[in-house]
Amino acid sequence: MKIEVKKNILASNAVVAAGNRERLERHGVSMINLMASPGAGKTSVITRAIEGVRGELSLGVIEGDIASEIDSLAIEAMDVPAIQINTGGSCHLTAAMVGSALDHLDLGALDMIIIENVGNLVCPAEFDLGETARVMIASVAEGHDKPHKYPLMFREVDAIIINKIDLLPYCDFDLPQFRQIVAGLNPGARLLELSCKDGFGAGDWCDWLLGAAARVSGGA
Amino acid sequence: MKIEVKKNILASNAVVAAGNRERLERHGVSMINLMASPGAGKTSVITRAIEGVRGELSLGVIEGDIASEIDSLAIEAMDVPAIQINTGGSCHLTAAMVGSALDHLDLGALDMIIIENVGNLVCPAEFDLGETARVMIASVAEGHDKPHKYPLMFREVDAIIINKIDLLPYCDFDLPQFRQIVAGLNPGARLLELSCKDGFGAGDWCDWLLGAAARVSGGA
Repeated sequence: MKIEVKKNILASNAVVAAGNRERLERHGVSMINLMASPGAGKTSVITRAIEGVRGELSLGVIEGDIASEIDSLAIEAMDVPAIQINTGGSCHLTAAMVGSALDHLDLGALDMIIIENVGNLVCPAEFDLGETARVMIASVAEGHDKPHKYPLMFREVDAIIINKIDLLPYCDFDLPQFRQIVAGLNPGARLLELSCKDGFGAGDWCDWLLGAAARVSGGA
Repeated sequence: MKIEVKKNILASNAVVAAGNRERLERHGVSMINLMASPGAGKTSVITRAIEGVRGELSLGVIEGDIASEIDSLAIEAMDVPAIQINTGGSCHLTAAMVGSALDHLDLGALDMIIIENVGNLVCPAEFDLGETARVMIASVAEGHDKPHKYPLMFREVDAIIINKIDLLPYCDFDLPQFRQIVAGLNPGARLLELSCKDGFGAGDWCDWLLGAAARVSGGA
């Protein structure tokens, strides 16, 4: 019974997600679904992207949170359109929530939308939002064993940002072992080392975004 | 319609949770529901507790994870009974899952059970497991703004462990501001600073556990 409910929710979500994707394709807009634990650095990863692709890509941001508007206000302060979704109690965004946010963005004026999903490594991996690529952030402070515990998330993404790489000397994070575990789950995923604090790896992250945008717009 | 489903699930969960709580009371056993983001250090916080209360409290552990047995094997290696619950896809433990785990523990021989919930700051806050106290971990690496984003979790707990306090010099974590935000949401919560790495604060954490056990056993 519970499984039926879940199945129905996911099936109707998939229909709405397909609609979002078609709508983006018509405008040649790419959409990145950015997922991570609470506090892994999603907002900082987005602000690094905004700084790095300014002048090359016209960005919009959709901010998903249980509560608060802190993140969308930070993004708007950088002159980037940001739509805040407060999910109430829900632990993930749905395609319908993202569809409503798209209504408030000028798709004709944008190249790429970055969605900051709710901080959670579980349910967001199950809900297609109509994105054109999926990225997750694993913070060095979280430990290298997280792929064993949240395998679906690590399997479902196109790129994995290893964030807070500046904390490597102070944490028991075994980078070679992390790379090996990820390779077993998702050999095609691109791994990107990043420090939002000192900017290490920000160039690679932005290059990856430019590639993701080009794939959707037809190689602009 | 979706809200009805959620309401029914929570109502039937509450009935099972009350049953778990009665069962524990009959044996004078306390049960701590330990919640946190992925990678906040739940397992290390538990192993610090095991070391610190050995000889004073007889502990059992229930490990909740989407997948893997890593954590329960680590606990069993310390000669503490550990029951692993793999939730499949579910992002939180339920009272029924915990009830099944209680069937496999010798309640007559235990003083306290610590439950490591699934790494998630959202749904675990909504599901009563029949615990006698709730504790959450906020890691310094996650940032001091998390209470704004996950207010229910911060409101619902009896104690908040500020973990990885050794990372304070390397992170932009404003401790006074964090304390102030938490005081606004949950003025009664006990705040415990802890470093599982160097042991700072482990004594306070263990004293808090001894107090929680005494309240349930009637002041042993």
